[in-house]
Formats: sequence, C-alpha cells, structure tokens
Amino acid sequence: MKNNIITISREYGSGGRCIGEEVAKRLGIAYYDKVILEEVAKETGFDKEFVEKKAEYSPFKSAFAYAFVGRDTNGVSVDDYLFTVQRKIILECAEKGPCVIVGRCADDILSDRDDCLNIFIHGNLDAKIKRIMARHDVTEKEAAKMMREIDKKRSINYKYHTEKVWGQANNYDMSLNSSRLGEEKCIELIMQLYNS
Amino acid sequence: MKNNIITISREYGSGGRCIGEEVAKRLGIAYYDKVILEEVAKETGFDKEFVEKKAEYSPFKSAFAYAFVGRDTNGVSVDDYLFTVQRKIILECAEKGPCVIVGRCADDILSDRDDCLNIFIHGNLDAKIKRIMARHDVTEKEAAKMMREIDKKRSINYKYHTEKVWGQANNYDMSLNSSRLGEEKCIELIMQLYNS
Repeated sequence: MKNNIITISREYGSGGRCIGEEVAKRLGIAYYDKVILEEVAKETGFDKEFVEKKAEYSPFKSAFAYAFVGRDTNGVSVDDYLFTVQRKIILECAEKGPCVIVGRCADDILSDRDDCLNIFIHGNLDAKIKRIMARHDVTEKEAAKMMREIDKKRSINYKYHTEKVWGQANNYDMSLNSSRLGEEKCIELIMQLYNS
Repeated sequence: MKNNIITISREYGSGGRCIGEEVAKRLGIAYYDKVILEEVAKETGFDKEFVEKKAEYSPFKSAFAYAFVGRDTNGVSVDDYLFTVQRKIILECAEKGPCVIVGRCADDILSDRDDCLNIFIHGNLDAKIKRIMARHDVTEKEAAKMMREIDKKRSINYKYHTEKVWGQANNYDMSLNSSRLGEEKCIELIMQLYNS
C-alpha cells in the first residue's frame, strides 16, 4: 500500500500527539494539529480558544439539550458549523501532500482516501496519569479527572460526527499501547508501516 | 520488555487464527487453540462439540434468561463451570513455556503476567466476508450472517467473563487490520514485537 497521510487518534495522556509530531519530523512531512484550529478561527472569525473548546470536544451537552441550543438562524448549530469548516481544512491539508494529522476525526473525514494510515495510541491508566501530572503540574486526582473528562468528550465528539465508537480497534489500521511498547517503538512501527 | 506468551483475539474472518498459527510456527513456540477444547472436554467429561459451542460463545442468552437456566445443584452454571476449567488449562499452558494462545479471553485470563503480548486482529467487512465464503463455501449473505452472529457471541462472551468491551483497542498491546496491512505484515509485526 502507498501511504501519504497518517492520522493519529489518541487517549489523553498516552503521548499520541508527541508520537505523531516525532513521526512527522523523522519522515520530513507536514504536521497538523494546532494549526488546524488557527485556520478554523481565521475562517470563521471565532476566537481560537473558543474554537479549540468546540472543535474537538463538542457536542458535550446531551443530545437532548443539544437540540435546543446554539443554533444560528439557518438552523445550523455553532458546533456543526465549526466542524464543517474544520472538515474542509483537514481535506485541504491532506490535498497539499504527505502529512500527519492529530485528532479531530481526521481518520473518518479522510476515509474516502486509500493512502491514509489510521493509528490509535492508547496507554495504561497509571502511565497516562503520571504523564498528565508531569505535563500539567497537577495532583494524581486532578490528572485522573482531566483524563476521564477529556476522553469522554473526545468519545462523544467522535460518536456524534462519525457514528462510530472512539477507540474501537476496527476504526484504525493499527492501535498501539504506548505504555507497554514505549514511545520509541510506537514511532518506529508507524514509520515502518508508512514506508511499507 | 520480555515476552513469552502471545494471545491473539480476532474478528471472525480476519485471518487471526492463521496469523497466530504462523507466528507460533516461525518462532518455534507452542500453539494452543483447539487443543484447549480437547483438554476441557477430557477434564469435564463433556462432548468436544458441546464444549466448543459453550466455551467461547457462552453465555449467548440474555443476562436475564441466563440467571434461570443451566445451573447444577451447587448453583454453578454449566457455562461458568466450563469457563473455570478452560481458565485453569490456559494458565497451565502459559506455565509450560512460550506459546501463542488464540481466543478464549486468554488476554484477560493472563493479565497478571507481564510477559504476555496481547494482539487483536480485525479486518474490513468485504475482505472478511470473502474469506468466510471461500473457507466455508457459503454465499455472501450466509457469510455475512455467520460473521455477525459469531462476533456477537464472542463479544457477549468476552463482556460476561472479563467485564471489558471486546475489540476495544485499549484491551490489547497492538491491534492490526489484516485486510489493510496484509497477513504477512501482521505476522512480521507481531514477531518483531515479541522479539523486541
């Protein structure tokens, strides 16, 4: 198979983003993560922080509450509008050439392409909590809470936009436990598949 | 990490069993699949076919119905009894030395060991159906039905005995899409991780 694009989905605290960044660096290809947010903010006129909150983690209201709030006069919710713009930008990024895209349902958005390698990075509870504690200078309890909340939001967001279950192995070409295998091994395996 | 045991969980039609068998052959280590059934049959006195049906696919009744049927005078259901014997045999197999064990919740049964590499093999719908059609000489419709039913039973069985969701990436160290990567690549990746 010929691969051009790598999408990385990841559990919070698994190091998936760092793995994706390092893979892009070593392969000498583009890396898209926060830059997508900036593009969405530019195109929609919304604040970057607002976009960040909305674009990967919405809708985090219940489906019922969601039906009644945040819609513009055309009946399109702000969440849906932002997702549509984000989707267009991800498709444009992929068109530009080989790249790594982290998060944002990119695996599903690019599912019509057959040159896309979809990776999921997950990890053991203890290792993820330790990583979050170190990165954000928080207590174990706070780290565990952050992890639960962010993964829950990612899961709801993915379900809402793709109708698939986030973290289910058969959405991805390869899923790796970064705590068990180590980040370096994960990087090597992804590069190996990309080049095969 | 030092690995001694490889457990292979797999979607029906993904070729996971053949991949496991080939990995064992190339690594020169034991391979356990049907032999576990034979041992369970021998130890319990039940017929092999009955054990096969029960040991990987039970309970396939609803939890409610399950509460009222198939219990012996000690209150232990036949399903639970068979699973207990199967569990003991899997633990004994792992004790004997390096091996590959396919299916039967082995990843969960051996979760106390840190020398166990847990793999999940899945595949694309079309490829799995084609494989089942060729192997069992059935129509596309029949193959799709077999696939749905067997995976559903595996999923219920796994949930019942492990309280985890079958096929969810974070139960395994590595999950691979055999249709996308090809069987040979899957074999190579598993061997590479085992030896690393």
